[in-house]
Amino acid sequence: MHNFVDAMLTDKYQVSMGYAYWECGKHKDNAVFDLFIRNCPFKGEFAIFAGLEECLHYIENFKITPEMIEVLRKDNPNCQEGFWKYLSSVTAKDVTLRAIPEGSIIFPRTPLIEIEGPLAIVQLMETTLLNLINYATLVATNAARLRLVAGFDVSLLEFGLRRAQGPNGGVSASKYCYLGGFDATSNYKAHELYGIPCKGTHAHSFVTAFTSLDDIRQDKFSESTIKARDILCRMFKLESTNDGELAAFIAYARAYPDGFLALVDTYDTLNSGVINFMAVAIALNEIGHKAIGMRLDSGDLAYLSKEVRKMLLHLSGKSVEYFRKSINLSKCTIVASNDINEEVLEALDKQGHQINSFGIGTHAVTCQAQPALGGVFKLVMINGKPVIKLSESIIKVTIPGRKQVFRLYNSNDNAVADIMLDYDEKAPQPEQKVICLDPFNQNKRVHIIPSQVGLLLQTYWQGQLTEKGRNLPSLTHIHDFVLSQLKTFQPEHLRSSNPTPYTIGLSQVLHEQMQTLWHNAQTVKVIR
Amino acid sequence: MHNFVDAMLTDKYQVSMGYAYWECGKHKDNAVFDLFIRNCPFKGEFAIFAGLEECLHYIENFKITPEMIEVLRKDNPNCQEGFWKYLSSVTAKDVTLRAIPEGSIIFPRTPLIEIEGPLAIVQLMETTLLNLINYATLVATNAARLRLVAGFDVSLLEFGLRRAQGPNGGVSASKYCYLGGFDATSNYKAHELYGIPCKGTHAHSFVTAFTSLDDIRQDKFSESTIKARDILCRMFKLESTNDGELAAFIAYARAYPDGFLALVDTYDTLNSGVINFMAVAIALNEIGHKAIGMRLDSGDLAYLSKEVRKMLLHLSGKSVEYFRKSINLSKCTIVASNDINEEVLEALDKQGHQINSFGIGTHAVTCQAQPALGGVFKLVMINGKPVIKLSESIIKVTIPGRKQVFRLYNSNDNAVADIMLDYDEKAPQPEQKVICLDPFNQNKRVHIIPSQVGLLLQTYWQGQLTEKGRNLPSLTHIHDFVLSQLKTFQPEHLRSSNPTPYTIGLSQVLHEQMQTLWHNAQTVKVIR
Repeated sequence: MHNFVDAMLTDKYQVSMGYAYWECGKHKDNAVFDLFIRNCPFKGEFAIFAGLEECLHYIENFKITPEMIEVLRKDNPNCQEGFWKYLSSVTAKDVTLRAIPEGSIIFPRTPLIEIEGPLAIVQLMETTLLNLINYATLVATNAARLRLVAGFDVSLLEFGLRRAQGPNGGVSASKYCYLGGFDATSNYKAHELYGIPCKGTHAHSFVTAFTSLDDIRQDKFSESTIKARDILCRMFKLESTNDGELAAFIAYARAYPDGFLALVDTYDTLNSGVINFMAVAIALNEIGHKAIGMRLDSGDLAYLSKEVRKMLLHLSGKSVEYFRKSINLSKCTIVASNDINEEVLEALDKQGHQINSFGIGTHAVTCQAQPALGGVFKLVMINGKPVIKLSESIIKVTIPGRKQVFRLYNSNDNAVADIMLDYDEKAPQPEQKVICLDPFNQNKRVHIIPSQVGLLLQTYWQGQLTEKGRNLPSLTHIHDFVLSQLKTFQPEHLRSSNPTPYTIGLSQVLHEQMQTLWHNAQTVKVIR
Repeated sequence: MHNFVDAMLTDKYQVSMGYAYWECGKHKDNAVFDLFIRNCPFKGEFAIFAGLEECLHYIENFKITPEMIEVLRKDNPNCQEGFWKYLSSVTAKDVTLRAIPEGSIIFPRTPLIEIEGPLAIVQLMETTLLNLINYATLVATNAARLRLVAGFDVSLLEFGLRRAQGPNGGVSASKYCYLGGFDATSNYKAHELYGIPCKGTHAHSFVTAFTSLDDIRQDKFSESTIKARDILCRMFKLESTNDGELAAFIAYARAYPDGFLALVDTYDTLNSGVINFMAVAIALNEIGHKAIGMRLDSGDLAYLSKEVRKMLLHLSGKSVEYFRKSINLSKCTIVASNDINEEVLEALDKQGHQINSFGIGTHAVTCQAQPALGGVFKLVMINGKPVIKLSESIIKVTIPGRKQVFRLYNSNDNAVADIMLDYDEKAPQPEQKVICLDPFNQNKRVHIIPSQVGLLLQTYWQGQLTEKGRNLPSLTHIHDFVLSQLKTFQPEHLRSSNPTPYTIGLSQVLHEQMQTLWHNAQTVKVIR
């Protein structure tokens, strides 16, 4: 991991609260906090939970060093010495963390992470855990949505490092795009750190760096390319193509004879780039190598990809008659990479296109449609007593108490509801009726007779990593888990337009507890 | 700095191009790249340039270690051994970097950074430099815009760590919000690293952690608070307020008797939170401490802030008659912090409000209105020859050649235009006419007789840090520089609605050079 994620990656008020707790002797009170989302991002009805491994790593290494104490003391000169002594001793040895497995499809309101331990310590962890979960979950969800819209047959590449929110914004984005269903990244740092497959070819600058055919050495390969270009120009009724571009493609193909994928829009896609690509591909073909394809980075991608495919088909049909060795480029890969997002993918799908692979930058890494996830971290129990937080907005009212969370499946093995129960309630049983109440409207309820009951919240940390916490799945395993869920989960909850909300509810016991606390906590204005 | 920013924080295609350059012997060609923006973010007509110091740090430490070579070699098994030998020797000793001073108000098209050196080396730096500049400039610009809308008299606090795009996204956001004109951050890591003032009080969880007055020790202070609360309830016609909240406020005030700033919306802002705040403020007043104020985190901020101020005024008017010691809380600070952005600030301004300080989270750190800046890095010269990159979209056509950039001032000392000249042209002189041509429309031109001419591009690195590069201004100095520019620059370019574009132009020489290259590079389709 990296050196930013430590106890100082937190908001000042966590330390201020820590001191106030300590000052009144409440710092060791037993507290339970839930980390959850109130809404799904991107106007959707699901999210992909991500960031858990980084949270566990943070907790495992949680400590406040003498150097940190010095910074804090200087900023809080009036705090008593005993507090600094206390702070320098804190670790996560009295903390328990339960969570939903990383990569799970998740829904609003259910705790994604529940953390229990001494009040001041778990309070200090709030900001860091939110920081690690919010962005990871946002990016993974965004990636999964792009995957659903693009379909499972195309390749999705993340190209966003240059537009990401800082160095780590870029590296995290690459990691969680892959987790959420992408195939590869352009980011070598992410490849180095996480082993994510890395892809990439060349930029426009590579093309403009060659200004004429004199920039490359002349040999048989360049001669056959130039000859092929002449024939292609006649075939496609052009006077010529850009020489610098052709030189660049020749140089690139020499370096990567089996990896020739050319960016074709530097000067003119159809009238220069594609012709130059084909010329090089023909020369490669003569010496026994197969070109991979082209990348389009501007213009009308639906139109251009179809025109390019037509040109490739035309060439393949004519190649016997024009060239020494016949060539079939009709199945070449076409990569598209200009400002791709969900809407563009949907529009391309409607217009028809011939693209095999999408390179997505800005929209993948910054989640432009909604660049932040509003995950929150709320106290739900103190010293064994459930607590509630009210608000002017009903959506901000919390569900009190320590919970168990189960996923209920119908007889077709489809997940149909997630239910929260009080921690001490008996777990729902297969084939037995479960009553599931809407947290904010008790009249809205469903009865479910599940065929299967899945346990969502599991223990990853209990003073130390549990068996489960020590044996986390690999990133690739989580990536596969996400893809398999995207393929099997009821599609009405996953679709991008007007998705159906998934059922999330409370047990009767939990619901009553919530109502009682709410009733008691609400201030009553007296009207005289 | 941190361990992510090294030569591996780059796109794979930079390395692929490096190899192709090396393979054809072009890797040492002298190249000049411009880093610039094509458009200003947030539909504005200006931006604040930021990230330069981090770029210089990256370049100073630029090297490819044996460990990196191993990763790259494994991913590119067909590259020749000589390339790895070459890569392991590269540094920035043959590189020159010129840039506009960090914190400057900048405009589209002019190079923000110009980097010159061996083609393969500067190509490798593209992604990292863009990553470091794009987000920094975006956040600083966003902060400056928020400052302009909020005015110079309120305090702006950045509270976004939990919603930021990863750990570094959060830390960079805090840094560049401060650079762009904010007063402080909640982020202790940013305070630790950059010395940015750190602010914060307490969260809702602090309030909900106290469930009754039994949670705190009873003493004179708590007694006077409870007595004051009773009087206030009668004064404001309430039966009571929330006891847990009152207990929390008492605990907080005990810890920070001179720093009492209470979050008042946990249960009911006007009917509980404000009353409890006033009760504690009255008890503090009795023992010689002054409460700071309140934070509002939900509801109608304009209405609530005005109601709160009214209640404070009402109390101050009545305090002599009701309390042992008179108290005036009418000038208490009111902090507001729920989903603040430019539009909310403008709406609050129209509705009238009583807020002294804004805590801005998500919108400050993710720049929700536009979460990515599209800065680009384009080759403009190779081996002394200017080059152009064309595109299907005219906005993507580059301005070729190595440039000088000057800012021209009118007789009122207002900046009126930035002009790009060919590197070898004579600099514009005060009181001499300058012709300034629009890059894309030669008929659009202005004649300027400047009273002053400022040099924008300056040399920070030339094989090593220059004098200028070694003596960079401090973060606080840049923050002050930004604020002074925001106060003095012509407001029509800075305003948020319908701003006037600032004039950016080319000298006649540069313009002609661009037209010639464009003409020659454009492929001409033959119609038969």
